[in-house]
Amino acid sequence: MAEILEALALRRARRAYDLRPVEADVEEALWEAVSVAPSHGNSQPTRVVVARSAARRGALVHALNEGNQQWAVAAPLLAAILAVPAHDFPQTNSDGTVRDMWAFNAGIATGNLLAQATAMGLLAHPMAGFDEPAVRVALDIPGDVRVLVVAAIGYPGRADSLPDDLRKKEDIPQERVPRTALVADDSWHESQAIGWREWRKRLAEGH
Amino acid sequence: MAEILEALALRRARRAYDLRPVEADVEEALWEAVSVAPSHGNSQPTRVVVARSAARRGALVHALNEGNQQWAVAAPLLAAILAVPAHDFPQTNSDGTVRDMWAFNAGIATGNLLAQATAMGLLAHPMAGFDEPAVRVALDIPGDVRVLVVAAIGYPGRADSLPDDLRKKEDIPQERVPRTALVADDSWHESQAIGWREWRKRLAEGH
Repeated sequence: MAEILEALALRRARRAYDLRPVEADVEEALWEAVSVAPSHGNSQPTRVVVARSAARRGALVHALNEGNQQWAVAAPLLAAILAVPAHDFPQTNSDGTVRDMWAFNAGIATGNLLAQATAMGLLAHPMAGFDEPAVRVALDIPGDVRVLVVAAIGYPGRADSLPDDLRKKEDIPQERVPRTALVADDSWHESQAIGWREWRKRLAEGH
Repeated sequence: MAEILEALALRRARRAYDLRPVEADVEEALWEAVSVAPSHGNSQPTRVVVARSAARRGALVHALNEGNQQWAVAAPLLAAILAVPAHDFPQTNSDGTVRDMWAFNAGIATGNLLAQATAMGLLAHPMAGFDEPAVRVALDIPGDVRVLVVAAIGYPGRADSLPDDLRKKEDIPQERVPRTALVADDSWHESQAIGWREWRKRLAEGH
């Protein structure tokens, strides 16, 4: 019990990777964690493409935002986490609106991946900062498949391998909305409507 | 390491709950697991409302699909997992299309919740089968907040407390797409485009 919460809480989006490659059996445990994730109706819309060759890795790194390129290029394992909306079983509400489930399902699978990675001593950093059409071109992904994140995975390295501005970010404490704004009893509480940027300001001002 | 994958793999969407209530400190560990989940730009769009009173529980159960009502009513803890799209930092692609991140982020947080629950010996069953407007009314949730799942949480009970048709489902083995269809190297593989329903047919026919 303690070990799980420790792994979840230890997970941090750091940026310094060691050169040590991720062993095949360690990598396989990551995909097993993705595989066992639940999905509505067992639709399993999540897919992964790993960039292995130098050419594919280069194209995938090039598809990232510039801020990500400078550190993600050093990650031994780069993978695109995808979802296939056509595999989804959307839910229809009484008012006719429709709820898609594929992004949420891919999120659960990614949560599993991050927990498993952290528990094995890996650094797994999911990035939303990329150009989706460029990722599709880099990995031959069809236009009807969605890219959720590109994950940079490897063993943690030395922060002093990073440029100054990134090194300073490595050990910023995890900042979260107050628990009372995360969870409410019986009915929505107005404090839940306050977003993180506003919370950060209020917490800094000592409210 | 083994313990995490075990907890992830042990997680099953069972339906039989014990009467034993979920202790406050155990419940708190679930919300801590949700809290530490990563989100793009630390947006933290996930929120939770727990139905505590008999009236709120009744209204929330009533908002579920009939198939879920019959077993979820017995879960000691019923919670709506929500996301606030206004807290999101959407990403814009080079072709002008926009990627929302809130559903994916709420999925990661829910993955944490399920892993933590399983590791503590709890049964946590997320349901997508509900009417979103009815859930909003049940818990006073504003119209611009999205309901991802309703989670039924408690200690596992005896399967023979369930009706025949549900009891038979309790121990169905976890069925998954082949690993080669989940993960591909360097480029999208045509087997990844095949959805679970088709895979199930092919696997049953021995392909």
